[in-house]
Amino acid sequence: MYRPEIKIVDCTIRDGGLMNDHRFDTAMVKDVFDACVEAGVDYCELGYKADKKQFSVDDFGPWKFSDEEDLRKVAHECNTKVSVMADVGRTDYDTILPKSESIVGLYRVATYAKEIDKAIHLGNHCKQHGYEVAVNIMAVSHVLEPDLDECLKQLADTDFEYIYLVDSFGYLYSEQIQYLADKYIAALPGKQIGIHCHNNQQLAFSNTVEGIIKGINNLDGSIYGMGRAAGNCTTELLLGFLKNPRYNVRPILDLIEKYFIELQAELKWGYEIPYLVTGILNKHPRSAMALMKDSQGVSFGDYYQKLVSEDSV
Amino acid sequence: MYRPEIKIVDCTIRDGGLMNDHRFDTAMVKDVFDACVEAGVDYCELGYKADKKQFSVDDFGPWKFSDEEDLRKVAHECNTKVSVMADVGRTDYDTILPKSESIVGLYRVATYAKEIDKAIHLGNHCKQHGYEVAVNIMAVSHVLEPDLDECLKQLADTDFEYIYLVDSFGYLYSEQIQYLADKYIAALPGKQIGIHCHNNQQLAFSNTVEGIIKGINNLDGSIYGMGRAAGNCTTELLLGFLKNPRYNVRPILDLIEKYFIELQAELKWGYEIPYLVTGILNKHPRSAMALMKDSQGVSFGDYYQKLVSEDSV
Repeated sequence: MYRPEIKIVDCTIRDGGLMNDHRFDTAMVKDVFDACVEAGVDYCELGYKADKKQFSVDDFGPWKFSDEEDLRKVAHECNTKVSVMADVGRTDYDTILPKSESIVGLYRVATYAKEIDKAIHLGNHCKQHGYEVAVNIMAVSHVLEPDLDECLKQLADTDFEYIYLVDSFGYLYSEQIQYLADKYIAALPGKQIGIHCHNNQQLAFSNTVEGIIKGINNLDGSIYGMGRAAGNCTTELLLGFLKNPRYNVRPILDLIEKYFIELQAELKWGYEIPYLVTGILNKHPRSAMALMKDSQGVSFGDYYQKLVSEDSV
Repeated sequence: MYRPEIKIVDCTIRDGGLMNDHRFDTAMVKDVFDACVEAGVDYCELGYKADKKQFSVDDFGPWKFSDEEDLRKVAHECNTKVSVMADVGRTDYDTILPKSESIVGLYRVATYAKEIDKAIHLGNHCKQHGYEVAVNIMAVSHVLEPDLDECLKQLADTDFEYIYLVDSFGYLYSEQIQYLADKYIAALPGKQIGIHCHNNQQLAFSNTVEGIIKGINNLDGSIYGMGRAAGNCTTELLLGFLKNPRYNVRPILDLIEKYFIELQAELKWGYEIPYLVTGILNKHPRSAMALMKDSQGVSFGDYYQKLVSEDSV
């Protein structure tokens, strides 16, 4: 499976930050960046560009805001580019520096399909400031087909480099990924398609592989799967699978041993039954995360039944 | 994905027994059987039929031997049939009772391809005693193509009901599963094909789904994935995915909460880096299991490097 166009985006710190309010030690984030460089990872996503007028710096760690000075403490210019995520409606345009003043290489605009106009506006702003731009259409398993088609049509007319297929709820399986991958590729000539999967049903890696088979070249992973709720496709699985000689899994394995085994035991992302339940039922993991924090005596079976009943009318 | 021919074989106690020397409490095994019944699982595999002349009853729990009286303590005649596994070369033919005297419905003969003649001999013995028979060709990722073809040709001439595609090392990904599923189905007209996957690369469930798509109808799962090393496709994922109205995931979710969360924390089957390493490299998990028990200061990275070097000449 050696295809030179393939690029890995490691989003450990960005997506993983959703499990610890973005409170990572600077030294650890630097270790992650350095391991990504050594492993040949193409992009290392270090955080969100959240608006400090909406979110207090007292409530979150620095990787919620990704100030230039914080990014420069951990990253340097090299073959591994720095990526940051900008949420539609939560980003302060004024904090986006001209590319010449920033170590960031890629802005990834995260949006729901219904906010695609705002996403394109934000993406254009980033593009005008000199960055590569991706748009991640989140929660595609909740989007009606005509809305998705319209969304992709609008994105086809932009000069953004990457458009992402995102299974936010870990609901999709191979045949659905294949269908969507075909759709994105057909609708977006000249652009690279990316894929970002969640692991509620242990399908994040396999769905990413289905994406590769279909021609998707931008692959999101996170170390040991660290990410919201069930987490992501793991970076180490991607590195082990891809045959491109520039990739090397070993630095990531060592990093897992150093940090992530312990962190996972504490924060409990990954295959957990409440996340499985929301995945099977195509729901946001919000209520599952609350249950993981404090079950209040609700059993797994009761939780499943409750969510099934919510769908009844 | 409602196909009435589909059958789930839950092998929690049998494959899971490889993680605790088959020492499960009788009450727990009974709970597993009862939950399988309630969930609509078609077969519940309770153990091995190991030869007591080769293995001491002092060294293992009862589910290594699956004596009739032990099986009857936990199971009863109902829609969920009892399955046991008989390893080629490790089974005492004399302990296989006539079907009329046994609660067992299905014997699954586990074999390597090179021992297929012995497997057919043992399978015939079971068939003559009145049982359904499956043959599981283990470690197919190590079998040369002409040997596998010969193996399947010999099995085509038997009257065994089920032949299993088994990815013992958790090495295969979707395209390889698709290729093998096509091969098994083409070579074995009139028989049902089964699939048993290990989860070293988090592909056990997705590969089982690929099997379903290709026409495989016998699906192995285990509760919370309990099985040797990285474990198996989870029964709860299968039940959540399959649309047959006779299946119900809830009893399994409750059982996970009652027993398996704690058991997993103790025995540590599942996605662990040493198992990932043997999976990526298509190796038996033996050395990884030893590392998990006592690393002797060997880091994940060193272990990976050591196994990669072993392949060099």
